[in-house]
Formats: sequence, C-alpha cells, structure tokens
Amino acid sequence: MEYTAIKLVKRPELAITPDLFEVVRLQTPELQDGQILIKQTHMSLDPAMKGWMMPDRDSYIPPVELGDVMRSSGVGEIVESKNDRFPVGARVQGMTGWAEYIVSNGQGMNLLPEGIPTEAVLCVLALPGMTAYQGLMNIGKPKAGETLVVSGAAGSVGSMVGQIAKAEGLTVIGTAGSDDKCQWLTEELGFDAAINYKSDDLAKQLAAAAPNGVDLYFENTGGAVQHAVFNLMNAHGRIMVCGMISDYNTSNPSVGPNWMNIIKKRLTIQGFTMPDHYDKIPSMMQAMSGYLMEGKIKYRAHTLHGLESAIEGINLLFTGGNTGKLMVEL
Amino acid sequence: MEYTAIKLVKRPELAITPDLFEVVRLQTPELQDGQILIKQTHMSLDPAMKGWMMPDRDSYIPPVELGDVMRSSGVGEIVESKNDRFPVGARVQGMTGWAEYIVSNGQGMNLLPEGIPTEAVLCVLALPGMTAYQGLMNIGKPKAGETLVVSGAAGSVGSMVGQIAKAEGLTVIGTAGSDDKCQWLTEELGFDAAINYKSDDLAKQLAAAAPNGVDLYFENTGGAVQHAVFNLMNAHGRIMVCGMISDYNTSNPSVGPNWMNIIKKRLTIQGFTMPDHYDKIPSMMQAMSGYLMEGKIKYRAHTLHGLESAIEGINLLFTGGNTGKLMVEL
Repeated sequence: MEYTAIKLVKRPELAITPDLFEVVRLQTPELQDGQILIKQTHMSLDPAMKGWMMPDRDSYIPPVELGDVMRSSGVGEIVESKNDRFPVGARVQGMTGWAEYIVSNGQGMNLLPEGIPTEAVLCVLALPGMTAYQGLMNIGKPKAGETLVVSGAAGSVGSMVGQIAKAEGLTVIGTAGSDDKCQWLTEELGFDAAINYKSDDLAKQLAAAAPNGVDLYFENTGGAVQHAVFNLMNAHGRIMVCGMISDYNTSNPSVGPNWMNIIKKRLTIQGFTMPDHYDKIPSMMQAMSGYLMEGKIKYRAHTLHGLESAIEGINLLFTGGNTGKLMVEL
Repeated sequence: MEYTAIKLVKRPELAITPDLFEVVRLQTPELQDGQILIKQTHMSLDPAMKGWMMPDRDSYIPPVELGDVMRSSGVGEIVESKNDRFPVGARVQGMTGWAEYIVSNGQGMNLLPEGIPTEAVLCVLALPGMTAYQGLMNIGKPKAGETLVVSGAAGSVGSMVGQIAKAEGLTVIGTAGSDDKCQWLTEELGFDAAINYKSDDLAKQLAAAAPNGVDLYFENTGGAVQHAVFNLMNAHGRIMVCGMISDYNTSNPSVGPNWMNIIKKRLTIQGFTMPDHYDKIPSMMQAMSGYLMEGKIKYRAHTLHGLESAIEGINLLFTGGNTGKLMVEL
C-alpha cells in the first residue's frame, strides 16, 4: 500500500521551517512474523520534537537522523497483524513518527482500552500526562493544602499538572501567555488563579495569588516567571524542572536566579525527562485513567488536519498559538 | 568574676567593621542549680556569622539582637558546675558566643572525649565537619569512582568535603583562591586536582581535570566556578548547595546558570542548612571521629589570639586571607 511520510532532511537553525522536511510516498512492506501494520489516526506534536531535530544540543535522547522519518508519538489502528498480542482492529499508542502507516514489531506499542476517546488518550494518557504525573506526584510529592505554581499552564503538560494538583487538594496557580488561556484555566479547569506572564506586574500578581508562598513550582517555561516564582518559594520547597520553552527558540538563553535562595529555603530543584521513567508508565496510566473516570481531568485538543499540516503547525507550540494539546488528525 | 565579652550593637551594610561591636566587661553571676560556668578556650569564626548579623536577610536562623553578645560556637572548660552531667574540668563544645566566660544550663553543650586536640574538635568535629558530612554523604550520596568538585575547597567545610570524598574513593577536584592553597590541597590533603579560581582559563582547567565529567558538585562559593562546573555535570549529577561566599559581601549577587542543563542532565540541586539536621550530629560526629582516628582527615587551623582579635579577624573569611579553619584562642 502506498502512503505519505515526512522525513527530516535538514537541521533547524532557530526556527522550524518547511525546508527542513521532505514529503515522500512510500510503500508498505510485506509483514514478517511478529510484525503489525498500524494506520495512524492521531499524531501528537510536542515541544520536545525541536530537541530531536537538533544534533548539537547534547540532548537526552539521540536526534533524528537526517533522511529518517520525523519522530513523534501517536495513536493508530492495527490494520494487519502477524503478532498474536496485537489483533487487527485494536488501537495502539506509541512512537509512530510522521507517517500515515507504520510497521512495528509491537515493542513500545501499548494497546488502548476501549471507551476512551483518542483525543483523551493523546491529551491525558500520553507522554504529556505521564510527564505531568511523574514530575508532580513522583518528584514533587505534594501534600494537600500546599500551593503549586505551574508555568506554561495552558500547555499539554501544564494543564494536566494543575488538574492533578487540584484533584490532590492543592492551591493551584498557573501562568500562561494570554488572557483567554488564563480564563480557560480558572473557569474550565478549576485553577485557583491564572496570570498572564506578559503582564507588567507579573511578580506582584504572583505574590498576591500566593499569600502563603509557593511550596511547589512545576517549571515548563523559564524566563520571567521562573525568577518571580523563585523569590516566593517557601522553606523546603520543591521545583520540578520539566521544560524551558521560552529558551527553545533563542540563541541567548536567559540567566537563572542566584542560588542564595536555594540555601536559605533549603530548596530542591530536580530536572527530569521521561525516558528515565518509562518503567512507571503503566502505573501512571492507571492513575491518570482514574482521574479521567472521576471527571477530574478535562482536556482540550487543538487539532490540525492531514499529515502535512504538521510542517507549519508545529510552530504553534513555540509562538503560543495553540489552544490545547496540539495534534494532527490523519 | 569579671570577664570580657563583645556585643553586636549595629548591623553591617556590606563589610564587617569595628563599629558594629562594643567590647564590654561583665560579671559572672552566682550559678543556679543545673547551671555550669564555661571558660572558653577556642572560639570558632565562620562565614555564617555574617548572616546572623543581618536582620533583613530572611535567614534560616534568627539574627543576633542588637545589644546581645555576638553568637558563635566554641570549646571551653567547665570551671564551676551545679550540674551533675557536666563535671568541673570537662571540655564542652557548643554555642558559646564572643565571651571569655559563658553560663549555661548545659542544653546544646556536648561533652568532648579526651585525647582529641581542641583544634581538631573545631576543625573536624564542629559545625564545618558536620556540614561537610551532611552535604556530601547524606544529600549527595556519592559512589566510589565518581568525580566530585568542591568550591571553596581550602575552607573549613570544603577541606573536609574533599577529604571525606577521598576516603570514600572519589576523584576529587577543588577550587581555591590562591596557588598556595591549591598546593596544600593536592600535596597535603590528597586532592586529585586543585584549581585557582582566579585563573583566566578556569573552565578549561576544570574540564581538563574532569575528563569524565562531574557527578557531584559541593557548592560553597557561587560565581565563576559555579557556571564552569554546571556545564560539566554528568547525567543524574547532584549539586549540594551549602554556601555562596562570593555573594555574601556584595549587593549585586551574581546570576545563576540557565536551567536547561538541569533538564538535559536530570540534575538534582539541593540546598541545605544545618539546623534542619541537628538530630544527625551524634552519628555524624562518630563517623567523622572514625576518619580522624584512621588518619584520613587532616586539618589546618588559622589561629588568632585574644577575644578582641575576632573583630578584625572575621574579615579574613571574606577576603580569603585565612589559611585553614579560622578560630580565636582565648
């Protein structure tokens, strides 16, 4: 069967531009024993992809080789199978890549339960949800009554972090890049406060929203929010460093705060990336499914249409143009 | 009995100047039941004292009240006792203050074993040694074969950190403020490398001394060393933040490094101060005494003479003028 795929053929300088990619038509091979053919229905677009395109960045997983199909996670339906574990008709999630069809031996592919919409899978049970759970619950170890700030709160990870924290009884403050997003966070997702980080009086607004200080900071952005929250941290505060999206598209990364406060407040700052924690994904999926069933997690998909829409669409992640988890419906 | 004490009567702006203090003559009171009279023989001078003088610094222990005797730790001999636990003639260690005699009910005073010189007590078994042990062993959890960098390595904490690490089988690199100190670290204390942080090519020298990268960084100084080491950290590196001495005497604290590396290398950065860990002091003293008996810990005292020498002498800590643990012999 002929299908479309998109290869990475050039590395980005700063921006992700169409000339980095080549759209190709490929032929699905004859399946060998143990293999399955997956028809991708929904493909996830995530900020980490930019790191995967860049080789010089000393990143935590190897970059995509030039000439290879661009890496991504996604959900698809099994349309052919020579593997008993994966029957035709079942839905799977895994690293699919920018392609309409994927041949796989099943490794790293997770079968999905029926009854959960595919958008919910990518919004809640996929890497962003797992990332939120790992950072907040396993690293941050929050206690009910504590105050959390999450930056990039309207993003795919941040919106999960805040909702898990609300389900766990925390006071939750989010920062986001527009008043609309802030309104969504407080009115739809139940955040206690949301602040537009472009406000002139960001630090003052944060201090006002956190009269008892900040116990947990889930860092997705860096930049001005980082400095303002850092100054509000309480003794024994925990900072989970997940992303620095404000620095992904710049050659002049912002400076960090002076470390004196780390001593005075006995802070713990911990960076994490998910490949270290893949073994915990089954238990985290279970926990997240629980929140979902209880109606404690809402989600919002920002859906593009057609594989090739990814080429321009991925930039929405870096301009803040997406409203919800960015994905491509094929 | 009449004795001399030194009171804090003014708060420092930036420098510690003689006008902050008032030398007074006081009279020892009649002892009440449970009290002891201690004749201080050795008084410790430590960088933390500057924080204790400043009220606006939002510090982890309350500042010294103006008009009170300046706070410090020290060792003394019991010369009068109405407390059965503390016989006359015994040596004790504890928070003594800038005074020739101290009346105490014994709380917070530790009896010292015979046979360990008083200088060794202040250099190895006092707060700096406990701080080194807590940060390196309890927080850093080093494994034999790993590489450690310690800044302020010739200081009272740093010199202990490096020696404990050597005893535990690590590769140890220290930074210090003079070639003499560096020579002491490598030739006397057995450090694998020592680098003068004032060198133009600090970053290059550090990279050359740590060809396998840095697993543990014990931070005492901040400044240029912090940035250079931060860039060399290995995956899953641990940074124990104990002091920022390069910023204690400035109103323009240095900026910290960008946090991107915290994610890429999954670093853990943890600040600590000893009041959170006083419960572990007995077990840590035992561990440190063990190293001392085995000859694995050397120490160097920089001894000033007479109580009033503390007034000017404390500044040696901030100019880097001291060679070894700074103390006053009374």
